[in-house]
Amino acid sequence: MPREITAFSNPLVKQVRGLREKKNRRAEGLFLAEGLRILTEAREAGFLPELTFYASGAAHPLLDQLIAEAEAGGGEAIETTSDILHKISGKDNPQIVLGVYKAFPTDLDLIDRGKADLWIVAQALRDPGNLGTILRTGDAVGAGGLILVDDCADPFSVEAVRASMGALFTQKIAMASWPDFIAWLRAGEGELIGTSLNSSQDYQQPRYRTPAFLLVGNEAQGLPAEYEAECDTLVKIPMLGKADSLNAAVATAVTAYEIINQWRR
Amino acid sequence: MPREITAFSNPLVKQVRGLREKKNRRAEGLFLAEGLRILTEAREAGFLPELTFYASGAAHPLLDQLIAEAEAGGGEAIETTSDILHKISGKDNPQIVLGVYKAFPTDLDLIDRGKADLWIVAQALRDPGNLGTILRTGDAVGAGGLILVDDCADPFSVEAVRASMGALFTQKIAMASWPDFIAWLRAGEGELIGTSLNSSQDYQQPRYRTPAFLLVGNEAQGLPAEYEAECDTLVKIPMLGKADSLNAAVATAVTAYEIINQWRR
Repeated sequence: MPREITAFSNPLVKQVRGLREKKNRRAEGLFLAEGLRILTEAREAGFLPELTFYASGAAHPLLDQLIAEAEAGGGEAIETTSDILHKISGKDNPQIVLGVYKAFPTDLDLIDRGKADLWIVAQALRDPGNLGTILRTGDAVGAGGLILVDDCADPFSVEAVRASMGALFTQKIAMASWPDFIAWLRAGEGELIGTSLNSSQDYQQPRYRTPAFLLVGNEAQGLPAEYEAECDTLVKIPMLGKADSLNAAVATAVTAYEIINQWRR
Repeated sequence: MPREITAFSNPLVKQVRGLREKKNRRAEGLFLAEGLRILTEAREAGFLPELTFYASGAAHPLLDQLIAEAEAGGGEAIETTSDILHKISGKDNPQIVLGVYKAFPTDLDLIDRGKADLWIVAQALRDPGNLGTILRTGDAVGAGGLILVDDCADPFSVEAVRASMGALFTQKIAMASWPDFIAWLRAGEGELIGTSLNSSQDYQQPRYRTPAFLLVGNEAQGLPAEYEAECDTLVKIPMLGKADSLNAAVATAVTAYEIINQWRR
């Protein structure tokens, strides 16, 4: 049976609100996802919240199903006010439901490259919105997951989860240092494809092979020279205007669609 | 000669800071752009700031050139502290320079469709980051500009200007109601191409003609049915995963690159 929380001072409200900060997510091994659409994606992918906060009076068959399955799985459902949902989420128009989930393990060794033809690798990607958008694109292009190299934004941040629109739960996520990633990559099959302003090869020119690992660099600096040197294929997206680069999530999507379009033919 | 402002209470600081809000931008016909890179893009496109705030001690040849040209053009340069730049921009790590610009006219009649083969049209696009990212992509694909239909985010907002990385100054921008846009469109040449989840036509299937008008819908709802019905061509991007849609700026970029890739062949 759901219990009810209506007091701002309830320690659980403070604890869950604290999950908006990385240090608390790390310490507790938990993260926050918002909204019926994302929580339903999670449920369909086999992930149920430990805690489900929902607005008193909210009615939706998918919400009922979520609460029933979450409680059957040992989770707790908490009916609350929209003011408290606002306090937890920090948003003016909070979603009707928030879920607290156990963070996933992110070891590179958990990635089975044979499970997909395409994997996305991001290096020092700093913007959580870009990270989430790349997860969402990864799902759309049938990628297996996202490997985060060097110091990236936290994939479990509220912004990244939101921008992923649920793809955080359907894409595998790994974190690794560059040397560890390269050692792992070279221990098996795989073509490492980097996008770079320094390449003279148009991104439509190569014939991409599977499994493909698409490497995208930091938003401001792009890929370091030694990382580019490690790539099997370096390509550039044509830039017809004044600017010399695209948004990182856009560049990833444009290249990923070219790769899968070749395979679709 | 630049003057110096070091007092938080200076009315000009308050006025410029106020440009982060839409009602003040509207009332004053001014907007704010941040950072040497974006202000340099603007200068190279022929736009100089009315007011230039720069950090005391900041040294860069492009900053010197910007200040010199802005002053020669009748603008005022103001040397200030990084605390005041922080106060104006609201960012923890403010850029070394901020510019205040006159807003551009956004009448549809100012668009000359013959100037470019591709134009992007956004309908009820609500996220200023998406709007700016679409401007940046528009520049990259050689589009002529962005036509905003219905109630979109403000292209002159700080977030949109920042995400555009300067493309706000190189892309034409127009705002119109849907009936006015359609009347204008049909008064000349042009193929209206909509991206839609309801289409069964793969986005690589049509042969796109010039001038192409690529129409992208609201982030959450997509295009209204009657807007889709008005399109000459409706296409969908393949979605290979669980999710049914892409981020709006990503979908725009993927389709825009397909269009120009056909023309590049």
